[in-house]
Amino acid sequence: MPQQRLVIIGGVAAGMSAASRARKLDPQLEIVVLEKGRHVSYGTCGLPYYLSGQVADASELVVYTAEFFREKRSIDVRLEHEVTEIEPGRKRVHALRSRAQPVVVEYDKLVIATGGAPALDIPGVQLSNVFTCNDLAGTIRLRAFIEEQRPRRAVIVGSGYIGLEVADALVHRGMEVVILERSESVLEGIEPEIGERVEKALHGHGVRLIKNAAARTISGNAQGGATAVQYGAGGSEPAELVLLATGIVPRSELAATAGVRIGRTGAIAVDERMLTSVNSIYAAGDCAEVRHLVTGQPTYLPLGTTANKQGRVAGENAAGGHGRFDGVVGTLVTQVFDLAVAKTGLNVEQARAHGFQPDAVTITSTSRAKYIAGKPILAKLVWDRATGRLLGCQMAGEEGIAKRIDVAAMALHARMRVPEMLHLDLSYAPPFAPVWDPLLIAANEAHKKISRS
Amino acid sequence: MPQQRLVIIGGVAAGMSAASRARKLDPQLEIVVLEKGRHVSYGTCGLPYYLSGQVADASELVVYTAEFFREKRSIDVRLEHEVTEIEPGRKRVHALRSRAQPVVVEYDKLVIATGGAPALDIPGVQLSNVFTCNDLAGTIRLRAFIEEQRPRRAVIVGSGYIGLEVADALVHRGMEVVILERSESVLEGIEPEIGERVEKALHGHGVRLIKNAAARTISGNAQGGATAVQYGAGGSEPAELVLLATGIVPRSELAATAGVRIGRTGAIAVDERMLTSVNSIYAAGDCAEVRHLVTGQPTYLPLGTTANKQGRVAGENAAGGHGRFDGVVGTLVTQVFDLAVAKTGLNVEQARAHGFQPDAVTITSTSRAKYIAGKPILAKLVWDRATGRLLGCQMAGEEGIAKRIDVAAMALHARMRVPEMLHLDLSYAPPFAPVWDPLLIAANEAHKKISRS
Repeated sequence: MPQQRLVIIGGVAAGMSAASRARKLDPQLEIVVLEKGRHVSYGTCGLPYYLSGQVADASELVVYTAEFFREKRSIDVRLEHEVTEIEPGRKRVHALRSRAQPVVVEYDKLVIATGGAPALDIPGVQLSNVFTCNDLAGTIRLRAFIEEQRPRRAVIVGSGYIGLEVADALVHRGMEVVILERSESVLEGIEPEIGERVEKALHGHGVRLIKNAAARTISGNAQGGATAVQYGAGGSEPAELVLLATGIVPRSELAATAGVRIGRTGAIAVDERMLTSVNSIYAAGDCAEVRHLVTGQPTYLPLGTTANKQGRVAGENAAGGHGRFDGVVGTLVTQVFDLAVAKTGLNVEQARAHGFQPDAVTITSTSRAKYIAGKPILAKLVWDRATGRLLGCQMAGEEGIAKRIDVAAMALHARMRVPEMLHLDLSYAPPFAPVWDPLLIAANEAHKKISRS
Repeated sequence: MPQQRLVIIGGVAAGMSAASRARKLDPQLEIVVLEKGRHVSYGTCGLPYYLSGQVADASELVVYTAEFFREKRSIDVRLEHEVTEIEPGRKRVHALRSRAQPVVVEYDKLVIATGGAPALDIPGVQLSNVFTCNDLAGTIRLRAFIEEQRPRRAVIVGSGYIGLEVADALVHRGMEVVILERSESVLEGIEPEIGERVEKALHGHGVRLIKNAAARTISGNAQGGATAVQYGAGGSEPAELVLLATGIVPRSELAATAGVRIGRTGAIAVDERMLTSVNSIYAAGDCAEVRHLVTGQPTYLPLGTTANKQGRVAGENAAGGHGRFDGVVGTLVTQVFDLAVAKTGLNVEQARAHGFQPDAVTITSTSRAKYIAGKPILAKLVWDRATGRLLGCQMAGEEGIAKRIDVAAMALHARMRVPEMLHLDLSYAPPFAPVWDPLLIAANEAHKKISRS
């Protein structure tokens, strides 16, 4: 058999995970990565920390360089190669090298890891001081702008976790920050009680949050710089810097044009092997769908952890292995100033939309024994009245949140019912938890409510 | 029906949990708690923090006072009532009030929550400056001794979690501390790699650990004070204070004498309703056995969390409810200076002793993304080669340990196999975890080892 070639489009989390995994499985396989940018394999989730200065140098975010992959892993990483077309019939892709020179690369197996694109859709996004925090190159430009121009006032459009993390970073740099949020609540999908805590944290650090404020246009000056963001019915906020953080949409056009099936979410449909509808073509990361294990439905939840897992499985299978990725339970955590906010599973509204009969309790407890300065934890548990099954959990607090939400995530993975959660053997010592962990308190409250009904 | 009376022997964690739960279920029930000491319902696990001074006043450890229970919950708490005999045939107990006055109390249901007793068995334990840290009264005496006598040098016998927590507390108070450990390792049941980290932490804080050093006698002076502890074959350590932390044994004699079945562990045998072998008699807490959900066998693991759960279930059933407590997976966490150490499930040796075919991997990772000062985490995973089932996990590190061991505990509760753990949807953001959580890294290493064999 002649040497097989695996081509991977995109060299960030999913793409490089696929490449590395394929290499481990098959030392003979030829592996070509086509990356349109100048960086591979960096931690996108670390960008706000580079912005704040907590991460001093961008190179710290780069897990491995292109040279490393070329030399140590024999992976042919080609930077500044933007793929423009996939021809599944002839098993080849067309790319532009350095935005000009056409290149054709044939493949035996293909992994599409084109990622997501900022969901930008208002006039003025092209102005010089309008930024996103979605990729390394853009964030390097943003930080350089801040350090050179010293803007004093930033308007952030969107209050998803990136918007909030950037707000934190900019306040850290001494800027005045306004957030425009088009909906009623920060952090889409967060329950009102938890969202309230986040708003309090923002307020406590001087961030002004304007809700029900859909940004409409960004106005600029003669020099091509943004000066204000217009929102809602006549609102306007002056800005010396605009950050767009309205989420991302899957970069799936390339796949769609090639006849690869796109799911209802707009992202590429994949099975548990990360195989698309087209033979020999896999997809992974922010361009692909993922199965939600609570609803059983494909969904779009672009996150770094999922991208790594999907990439790994795609690489494994593209190299002839037998990996599978069953899906996610929707776990997310973010740090907003001193507050950690986390969720897993479905909120009440999502649960109802998926045909469950949700009920919920909200409790307050502490992160440690009270007598050694435990910090408050707010936790909400959602379950299905019909079956008692846990559907979701959200938490907020200053410590002990991230890995505690994981305990709830495990309960979702195990499809536990609330009555099975009353006496879980969770660790206890005064510095780490109260004797009844907040999660057990919530489960017991839920059980009481179930027993009464 | 005449008014029913529930009698509870012991008023700390299990006993007061039982009383409170019974009261909630049945407002009419007469509830009598016979407690031999002067305190009820305090956090035993907080005693080392009271000792160090982190908890300023003993009253902070008391969750509710006897008065609270009497007045707010109509629970007849009788302090300084030591039960001397149970007569199951006549459904009554005999007690001594204030060590002198005999009292007889009849019951319809009885909960035995007599707790555990320090496992002391060497000459000299009666000397005036020999202490334990097992109950509030004893710990109050110990702290008073330290503050009044200002001893400079302590010898701690035993390096279980209480021995280590007390070592931490005494160093915090400026004392020179020596620990005598009879076995090869600190923290019984800890894996060698994890134990090594603990030893390093002790060493780093000036604590001298002498292993293979079984204490034989405590020698004293003419005033009845201890002056040294003799150990092994001729060793001796001078001491101005001796702390015995060699674990506890169940206080089960009262039950045994009454014909209640004692399990092979020496603790009272109970079913999942906390019922003993004798009709209408329940047992809970440090005097009772508990089922280990990994082995399926009854075991003796006296811990505050379990005592609370068992007490609650005993109280529920004694009041006519239908609670059940299936058991534990053996989760434990402790803080030793800056280091947190945790375990859940079985170690390799225990797994082998229970007929499994254990295999294990040990990995090092970090508590956060490396680029924002993640701290090292050492994790060991144990699984069964025959089935792939997870059997246990141990971890050590300066942050992110306690609730991370809970994720492994959840995997044990759910009886997960290693291949099911590769892609768990655990929370990720740079301040809380690396993109592949240490637990996922360990699971992936385990899976590699399984695939190779």
